[in-house]
Amino acid sequence: MPISIRLNPDDNVDIALTDLLPGAEALGVTMTTPVARGHKIANRAITAGENIRRYGQIIGAATQDIPAGAHVHVHNIAMSDHAQDYAFAAEARPLVPATQARTFMGFRRPDGKAGTRNYLGVLTSVNCSGSVARFIAEEAEKADWFKALGNVDGIVPIAHASGCGMSGSDEGYATLMRTLQGYAQNPNFGGILLVGLGCEVLQIPDLVGRGRMRADNNFRHMTIQQVGGTRKTVERGVEALREMAEIANAYAREPIPVSELVIGMQCGGSDGYSGITANPALGVASDLLVQHGGTTILSETSEIYGAEHLLTRRAVSVEVGQKLIDRIRWWEDYTARNKGEMNNNPSPGNKRGGLTTILEKSLGAVAKGGTAPMQDVYLFAEPITKKGFVFMDSPGYDPCSVTGQIASGANLIVFTTGRGSVSGYKPVPCIKVATNSEMFRHMEEDMDLNTGDIIDGGVSLADKGREMFELFIKVASGEVTKSEALGFGGAEFVPWQIGAVM
Amino acid sequence: MPISIRLNPDDNVDIALTDLLPGAEALGVTMTTPVARGHKIANRAITAGENIRRYGQIIGAATQDIPAGAHVHVHNIAMSDHAQDYAFAAEARPLVPATQARTFMGFRRPDGKAGTRNYLGVLTSVNCSGSVARFIAEEAEKADWFKALGNVDGIVPIAHASGCGMSGSDEGYATLMRTLQGYAQNPNFGGILLVGLGCEVLQIPDLVGRGRMRADNNFRHMTIQQVGGTRKTVERGVEALREMAEIANAYAREPIPVSELVIGMQCGGSDGYSGITANPALGVASDLLVQHGGTTILSETSEIYGAEHLLTRRAVSVEVGQKLIDRIRWWEDYTARNKGEMNNNPSPGNKRGGLTTILEKSLGAVAKGGTAPMQDVYLFAEPITKKGFVFMDSPGYDPCSVTGQIASGANLIVFTTGRGSVSGYKPVPCIKVATNSEMFRHMEEDMDLNTGDIIDGGVSLADKGREMFELFIKVASGEVTKSEALGFGGAEFVPWQIGAVM
Ligand SMILES: [Ca+2]
Ligand SMILES: [Ca+2]
Ligand SMILES: [Ca+2]
Ligand SMILES: [Ca+2]
Ligand SMILES: [Ca+2]
Repeated sequence: MPISIRLNPDDNVDIALTDLLPGAEALGVTMTTPVARGHKIANRAITAGENIRRYGQIIGAATQDIPAGAHVHVHNIAMSDHAQDYAFAAEARPLVPATQARTFMGFRRPDGKAGTRNYLGVLTSVNCSGSVARFIAEEAEKADWFKALGNVDGIVPIAHASGCGMSGSDEGYATLMRTLQGYAQNPNFGGILLVGLGCEVLQIPDLVGRGRMRADNNFRHMTIQQVGGTRKTVERGVEALREMAEIANAYAREPIPVSELVIGMQCGGSDGYSGITANPALGVASDLLVQHGGTTILSETSEIYGAEHLLTRRAVSVEVGQKLIDRIRWWEDYTARNKGEMNNNPSPGNKRGGLTTILEKSLGAVAKGGTAPMQDVYLFAEPITKKGFVFMDSPGYDPCSVTGQIASGANLIVFTTGRGSVSGYKPVPCIKVATNSEMFRHMEEDMDLNTGDIIDGGVSLADKGREMFELFIKVASGEVTKSEALGFGGAEFVPWQIGAVM
Repeated sequence: MPISIRLNPDDNVDIALTDLLPGAEALGVTMTTPVARGHKIANRAITAGENIRRYGQIIGAATQDIPAGAHVHVHNIAMSDHAQDYAFAAEARPLVPATQARTFMGFRRPDGKAGTRNYLGVLTSVNCSGSVARFIAEEAEKADWFKALGNVDGIVPIAHASGCGMSGSDEGYATLMRTLQGYAQNPNFGGILLVGLGCEVLQIPDLVGRGRMRADNNFRHMTIQQVGGTRKTVERGVEALREMAEIANAYAREPIPVSELVIGMQCGGSDGYSGITANPALGVASDLLVQHGGTTILSETSEIYGAEHLLTRRAVSVEVGQKLIDRIRWWEDYTARNKGEMNNNPSPGNKRGGLTTILEKSLGAVAKGGTAPMQDVYLFAEPITKKGFVFMDSPGYDPCSVTGQIASGANLIVFTTGRGSVSGYKPVPCIKVATNSEMFRHMEEDMDLNTGDIIDGGVSLADKGREMFELFIKVASGEVTKSEALGFGGAEFVPWQIGAVM
């Protein structure tokens, strides 16, 4: 088992994987001071003022000369002016495009997008139609005609807590509208039935808009009040689904370039390993997908707060960098008006664990996004139109952040977890990545991939990233994830509720 | 069919039920001007400065002399200073206690409270355990041991959208804690299994506290991360429920005084009839229950805004009246900091429909609460300890308001609706009351009671109120409501999310 790890070839610090004493040797470096597990080691002599790099990224600068093999922490590094400079677009270095064309077996939709699953959805405008949407989906899945379908994965009721008792014109309303519209248009659906109550604030005609809700027109809507109650709505809803299922069933898997994959990246229940195993390995996989022309989405704005400089430098333009800063300012206002505050600084516990600066702490989350240029910044649930690595604003709260990514168009979710999260997000498969082998063994029936072997199995980040990339293709092509097999996805639709409940 | 209605014997105005022309006679009054449907008629000569009473309550004062039979509206009445005076406790007139003792057949709990149903609940601390709670409940209900139980109504999974991605110390956190604790202690549960993920902000030990979660001790808890994943947690959860079901099954229905009924009153999807049929009829039923020593809960603070004077006068003390005003001030801040505003003034459409002042508009909602003194004012989901008519703060949004009432201890919900709401709220039965016969016929399979016959069947408010009171007793004793028979209650648990999602 290795006793230290170098997260990027450019790094001038390594990370101790166990408590090290002076004289210990690791990766060709001989310790000159004690270095506790999780803490940083200078892997060469560093001169005062020089930048400190972890994951190849600047986390601060040396405040004094640091000899090779010495402990690097709050006593000899600090945030530099450079580290706090947005330096818009200064480090947007395009990745070398892949030469080998790769495909997955997916569902091609009329609008050109590609699904990795083929579900029918029963979407709701308001909580008050949530139970009826469930009844419709349950009833339809019991029918003989449903069982005879070959290409439809299931019928997903999408119930939520909102849609009424809210302003009909503010930011919260606009956010819920985008979220519901985004679900209706997610390529993992082969058809959408929208069910409302009738008297809710969020009215179905406003939601549907003047355009077509879905490019394939496989869309119906009804309200319980118009149809005349629960039983009749269930009956009519099941009839509608039966007709819609024929259209959905005509979609079949075909080879599609992996450039059509749109992967929502997520971490939840993080631990001390997240930032050195699963997240950087996902960063490698993200870069690979970007090299193949695909799209990866980083989110969780509250977890990158204070370290937005890491991303503004990778922005493809000043404008894109500024969009991120605009979201950061919005968040400061959002939390302040809710009597909270943004604070992502390393806590005393973080510091004991070896995290020195806010940049370094946030890097644990940002590492998921690899090194590709940031092509654009999107609002929560805003349709993603650019290829490559992008950012979508969201809370760090997992089910809410994933809900936004799916509404934005994600057709695959990758979720790293240290403590063990067991959620699933129909209609989109979610690959669960364990950060450590102990949790992986403890919760093996819920985890799709272990990255703990980067620590205890001598597997390189590069190899693990490639393994993860291959898993993306398998799952996108229909391989069933653990959370899908277990039946998850019935409780995890969590639109971001912004604004007062009235 | 009557052409006008007098909502209270003390009223000096009647309400036209159809468009009336001069010369038309109704309730002994001859029209001297045209009066449109829904508008007010002076039922005797009113002198300038005199208060105008509807539902026996002051809605404004005459700005000029008004002859009998004349139209009463914005041109001849206005809000008086008197109408805008809190007059704390000035009109708290105790009702005459009932002489006849009435009982229902309910489940007596060890803490003295009474259930109207006997469910087992699978409560969740966080969205991340919501699906697992559902799996546990579904699996248990399929088991032979469950089917053999005689006295357990079912197993209710209680999933929600929150519990993490939030501050661990603010008002939103405290509100969610009260809500979950309140559900665990609701007398309609005979036992509670609490399932968490493990790493969430809302930690199970904090939720359980140092006391006993339930007086009968029929309570277990577990986290998915500790147990080791989904399958094992489902297995262990079902085992726990099997043991808990034995204790729950030992509860049996027995005669219990109706003074143990705690009824959450609610209106949703209101129409022009709500304020003249269902709501005042519910007011009669509320008074009857209070006369029998029971408890009724009025809520929906946003819908009484601007008319809080109606309730402060009925407060039993200055302190109780002031508690309501404190909540009103809190709401002003809550909406302002969320960039909204409180505005319950009659809209142009309301005015065209005949509503003149904010007091009159709010009376449509407040009428549900009858005339009894207001014994206390509670926070959302705060345990209700007083008997009689009380107020619990909540948004007007139905599923959220009902969630608070159930957490506060309601064992029965009565829900008036004009447009037709079809929700249900396990573990508590919900009586749906239609405000008009047209909707009742259109949605008869969802409605438990029609009050439209107050308009079109010559039924008095007093008789309809008594009919409703008798229905309370039947449903409390086990008669199945429409929404229960249809299986509602799986999507309607909506805690009030206050604060930023992080
Ligand atoms: Ca995270
Ligand atoms: Ca997180
Ligand atoms: Ca997260
Ligand atoms: Ca209402
Ligand atoms: Ca309501």
